[in-house]
Amino acid sequence: MSNPHGVAGPARTPVAVLSGTGYGGMELLRLLHAHLSFELVEVTARTGLGQRVCDLFPQLPGVTLPLTERVECAELVFVALPDDAAVAVVPELLVAGRRVVDLSAGFRLREPALYPEWYGYEHPAPALLEMAVYGLPELHRAALKDATLVACPGCYPTAALLALAPALAKGLIEPDIVVDAKSGLSGAGRGLSLGTHYAEANEDVAAYGLPGHRHWPEMLQELADLLPQPSAASREGDEESRIRLTFTPHLVPMTRGILATCYADLRAGIKADVVRAIYTAYYASEPFVHVIGQPPHTKHASGTNHAYVYPTVDPRTDRLVVLAVIDNLGKGAAGQAIQCANVMTGLPETLGLDAAGLYP
Amino acid sequence: MSNPHGVAGPARTPVAVLSGTGYGGMELLRLLHAHLSFELVEVTARTGLGQRVCDLFPQLPGVTLPLTERVECAELVFVALPDDAAVAVVPELLVAGRRVVDLSAGFRLREPALYPEWYGYEHPAPALLEMAVYGLPELHRAALKDATLVACPGCYPTAALLALAPALAKGLIEPDIVVDAKSGLSGAGRGLSLGTHYAEANEDVAAYGLPGHRHWPEMLQELADLLPQPSAASREGDEESRIRLTFTPHLVPMTRGILATCYADLRAGIKADVVRAIYTAYYASEPFVHVIGQPPHTKHASGTNHAYVYPTVDPRTDRLVVLAVIDNLGKGAAGQAIQCANVMTGLPETLGLDAAGLYP
Amino acid sequence: MSNPHGVAGPARTPVAVLSGTGYGGMELLRLLHAHLSFELVEVTARTGLGQRVCDLFPQLPGVTLPLTERVECAELVFVALPDDAAVAVVPELLVAGRRVVDLSAGFRLREPALYPEWYGYEHPAPALLEMAVYGLPELHRAALKDATLVACPGCYPTAALLALAPALAKGLIEPDIVVDAKSGLSGAGRGLSLGTHYAEANEDVAAYGLPGHRHWPEMLQELADLLPQPSAASREGDEESRIRLTFTPHLVPMTRGILATCYADLRAGIKADVVRAIYTAYYASEPFVHVIGQPPHTKHASGTNHAYVYPTVDPRTDRLVVLAVIDNLGKGAAGQAIQCANVMTGLPETLGLDAAGLYP
Amino acid sequence: MSNPHGVAGPARTPVAVLSGTGYGGMELLRLLHAHLSFELVEVTARTGLGQRVCDLFPQLPGVTLPLTERVECAELVFVALPDDAAVAVVPELLVAGRRVVDLSAGFRLREPALYPEWYGYEHPAPALLEMAVYGLPELHRAALKDATLVACPGCYPTAALLALAPALAKGLIEPDIVVDAKSGLSGAGRGLSLGTHYAEANEDVAAYGLPGHRHWPEMLQELADLLPQPSAASREGDEESRIRLTFTPHLVPMTRGILATCYADLRAGIKADVVRAIYTAYYASEPFVHVIGQPPHTKHASGTNHAYVYPTVDPRTDRLVVLAVIDNLGKGAAGQAIQCANVMTGLPETLGLDAAGLYP
Repeated sequence: MSNPHGVAGPARTPVAVLSGTGYGGMELLRLLHAHLSFELVEVTARTGLGQRVCDLFPQLPGVTLPLTERVECAELVFVALPDDAAVAVVPELLVAGRRVVDLSAGFRLREPALYPEWYGYEHPAPALLEMAVYGLPELHRAALKDATLVACPGCYPTAALLALAPALAKGLIEPDIVVDAKSGLSGAGRGLSLGTHYAEANEDVAAYGLPGHRHWPEMLQELADLLPQPSAASREGDEESRIRLTFTPHLVPMTRGILATCYADLRAGIKADVVRAIYTAYYASEPFVHVIGQPPHTKHASGTNHAYVYPTVDPRTDRLVVLAVIDNLGKGAAGQAIQCANVMTGLPETLGLDAAGLYP
Repeated sequence: MSNPHGVAGPARTPVAVLSGTGYGGMELLRLLHAHLSFELVEVTARTGLGQRVCDLFPQLPGVTLPLTERVECAELVFVALPDDAAVAVVPELLVAGRRVVDLSAGFRLREPALYPEWYGYEHPAPALLEMAVYGLPELHRAALKDATLVACPGCYPTAALLALAPALAKGLIEPDIVVDAKSGLSGAGRGLSLGTHYAEANEDVAAYGLPGHRHWPEMLQELADLLPQPSAASREGDEESRIRLTFTPHLVPMTRGILATCYADLRAGIKADVVRAIYTAYYASEPFVHVIGQPPHTKHASGTNHAYVYPTVDPRTDRLVVLAVIDNLGKGAAGQAIQCANVMTGLPETLGLDAAGLYP
Repeated sequence: MSNPHGVAGPARTPVAVLSGTGYGGMELLRLLHAHLSFELVEVTARTGLGQRVCDLFPQLPGVTLPLTERVECAELVFVALPDDAAVAVVPELLVAGRRVVDLSAGFRLREPALYPEWYGYEHPAPALLEMAVYGLPELHRAALKDATLVACPGCYPTAALLALAPALAKGLIEPDIVVDAKSGLSGAGRGLSLGTHYAEANEDVAAYGLPGHRHWPEMLQELADLLPQPSAASREGDEESRIRLTFTPHLVPMTRGILATCYADLRAGIKADVVRAIYTAYYASEPFVHVIGQPPHTKHASGTNHAYVYPTVDPRTDRLVVLAVIDNLGKGAAGQAIQCANVMTGLPETLGLDAAGLYP
Repeated sequence: MSNPHGVAGPARTPVAVLSGTGYGGMELLRLLHAHLSFELVEVTARTGLGQRVCDLFPQLPGVTLPLTERVECAELVFVALPDDAAVAVVPELLVAGRRVVDLSAGFRLREPALYPEWYGYEHPAPALLEMAVYGLPELHRAALKDATLVACPGCYPTAALLALAPALAKGLIEPDIVVDAKSGLSGAGRGLSLGTHYAEANEDVAAYGLPGHRHWPEMLQELADLLPQPSAASREGDEESRIRLTFTPHLVPMTRGILATCYADLRAGIKADVVRAIYTAYYASEPFVHVIGQPPHTKHASGTNHAYVYPTVDPRTDRLVVLAVIDNLGKGAAGQAIQCANVMTGLPETLGLDAAGLYP
């Protein structure tokens, strides 16, 4: 197969974005357009069929593909649909032999019973929940290699899990956790609402999603998996009951970025320098997670797939305060999806994702 | 004495602002200009002496006073200087028989030994620390009536104390507290720094002041005072040792506003409806503190002396999550200072402070 | 009639806001709540009938009136409805003997034929167009005194007219004018649209309304009135044909504020110092228009009814460049409406409007 | 020479950034890090020598070069210094045989006498002004190929020239021009000032630089070059006298982006469709200039080297209103510098510059 850039080389994997008109989809188009080993062959939408992406979205002058209704050629499909639409379409994509990286929440929870409780619908394909791999490469890299269905994490869980994984996995903290997260407005999507109306959201900070945001069960599930196994035998779900998690999301007046500030008591005898050493070692070989020595700024991650993590100890309470920042559309969505796809297809994990942050 | 508005009525108290060129001072000028019972007679500055306020600050077209070097006539002085300058000037103001409302941190801590530790200087007038009244009327109204020196709270402590006072005073929570606060950039003052440079601060959220912000000891002191007295006799300081407080401030890209998100475990058996009832009762007669039924928005308080408090319980952990918003320059600084001065002079507490919020 | 504040004094005029749920209406509520001579007796809305304003809008804790469906008691009504709704309701308000200050565009144009062209509908009450007084007190103060129907100017025309009135009225410029205006997002109202979605509007500047914004004919009409009368007799409309006006509005990422940058060639022989002297004299007795010596900042007018005008001459081209700033919701809408009402009812023109700007 | 990526291929040109700590320099580092044919070998600074770029600037995790004091190896040097420092260092770089792309204003003006007038210093190397090529590839591509010294345009001139070039070159307009430009705050650089202090600049729009911004003579020089030659012989400078240019820059509250709104009378008989056709043809083969059919948004260009141009005609005045947007740090600075360097070294002009815009 000839390479569309006219360069002799290995064939590129044909990929599709379904759909390309939300913020996650747009970001996928931006990143895939520059990806050397994925060839963007299809972009779907519900309206504007036949129009070229570059005509709809001037920020993508190089993407001259027309919008289509369905995927027909791609071997790997990035699903950037709302949850309910994603859950409906993924089974048929899999049946057609395509590999799927789903950015929705439709396949993130292993336990089907959680869907009615948190998302308001019976899951139509509970069997797929077992085969779906949770797409956080730092935690599930091995399983991603052969995955046919990847459920990319939510933006909040990505930040919180990267912040807390070393502490939980290495037994640094008591499993009594507060995650206080701050997100830019793009996290609320492209759909209109009074809360995302400029004049209302500008010059404002507020919490939302109280008393329970949908990212809570997902966060809990993955945090529980990180706990060291208890000595005795345990059933599925026991681990979750061992974690006490409060999660409060806030909207702050900016477009991109998430900061998760996480609090938990250090276990007796754990010292700050040990915390720092363990965090550094835990992420030493990760290309996208950087343990730094200063409070991280969301702006440093803007437009990238990088995460910056700062573990610190409050010396007056021996409480771990660990902060993590990501771009909610990058490592929190599209960037992570491509990182997963790189792992799935045996490519270098950083391919197409090594751009530096747009600063200032 | 004739009223400058030409209306027959009681004489107005002559007041001064020292100095009027920072954000706290500017906000005092804005509010005092409209105050019916205080007459602004002096505004000091270090530079621009002799220039009229309205020529320096076009947003204050009605303030035609010239800047002067010192206070000579005012009976009550609002000190809006940096800490070190405030501590130096307040004693002579008091000696001259003037009453002082100090917006700096110079007289907020009762314990002199905390100044070297947290502020880097030996306090030059430790005796005044005992007589200073902490200027949060909701907690210290009675003492304010006769105060000659009022130490207005910091913006973060104001928000956190209003959020936590009912819970601590009424024994709703364990004294193990996390305060995660988000502030607009005006809280960092008018002095230039890279962190407040527009292109750096815009589209960015970050924590700062780790591992210990100066508002921590002030917050701790006042939280400790709220604890119900233990049954046995206790020495000064014991209460503070009974509170475990972690405080993390963050800067968010907006000009005004503070949101404090506070976390603490509910005591056993305390239910959410009881929490709500106690909060509502606690602030029932307060003109500026509103217990509301939705997560509060900083924007609702913009330009006002109001605070909005939302107590809620995380049903999965029985943790109290209580949110409070204020305008950091209003209830967090200049508004509160005037509220204190109203109490000190026997005026209606809301005089000059009943403007509605600027929204949107 | 007893004064609701319990103070002996002249009866206050009962006023209504119809409707109170858009940004113009909210700002009217904010200002009227503090007005000493108007008593807000009714606030209408289409939904939420019976709910109290303070419960819907936490930024207005003092406004405890319930929303009602219609006006029944008010002698003077502020109409803050969309154009079409305003045009429908104003005639019946007048018939009922109420005086009307209309903030919509429904009665701004004297020429009925312009409505189909610019607003897409036949005007249902063309006779009222003749009796409506254009509510810019600086230009039409005398006519406002006895007006029963006042058509408040649009926000862009207010800024442009205040910028250009001295130059046109005093013959300083050729009537060939470019108005390049920059507005905050609240000018687009509270209705949702992709263009006012935070993530789209933030970090963005763009022109809109090309090739013709609806404020163009209104601006032209009033600019033409300012022209010195030609020596020979002239028919209605001739003046307008003598003006060549290009108007380009832009949205900039902020909530409040308009800056109009206006360009026109100076007439031969006119010097910069003459320009400045004429501007200063023209507005010398205006309480709300300030001719200043520096480029004005929209922030200086935030939350106020003030306008700041800076006339300057480009020395390389002898072109007048005059800049004016207002708060689009203040002098550009609600503030101006109250200023008009003050004039209509013989009150001091600044009553309820003398608050300083919220800065920063 | 071996390729540092370990890939067999042509040697990359060693380049340096001098200095890398301002916003222009940072953006050069971001772009050069991803450039396949330039090898970044040196980054200079005045302070922090020996520190790694990635440690100073977390947004550049891949740039592990240490800061050095001077350039020693690079064949091509990007100079991102303030004007005075640039003018001092460029001659010695040239003497050492390096090619220079200068982002300062130090070599943009051909006429030495303009430097004292506009920049306040006698130009120390006037001979270099003649050999410097103005680095706008769309206008000076041929001359750039062999240039040893390129003076990259200012951000405002880039936007204005791209907006006006077709109209002036093709004789569509009278040479009487108003350029009303709106810029984000990063255009003011990384140096601190009250005007770029967040709390002052946020929620504010204002003009600045009146009555003459330094980009005016540069804009005039290049606009004049675009004029069709007059029939009779003309001396240097005559063209400039034929153009009447007013330029007003404004700061708007965003980080990146410039919008230039340009006004000029159409020549008699020129119609809107001709204007559009001529613009489209003029830029038909330009990879970075897009003539679009809607008012352009600065956000569409964010992070890119693209410019979007929208020519339109005000039908009521036959005035050309042409809008152009760029990223002031992209096409307005670092992107353009790299585009010039690509031309200078015979590389494809889009190399390293084909990233899509960061949206939203």
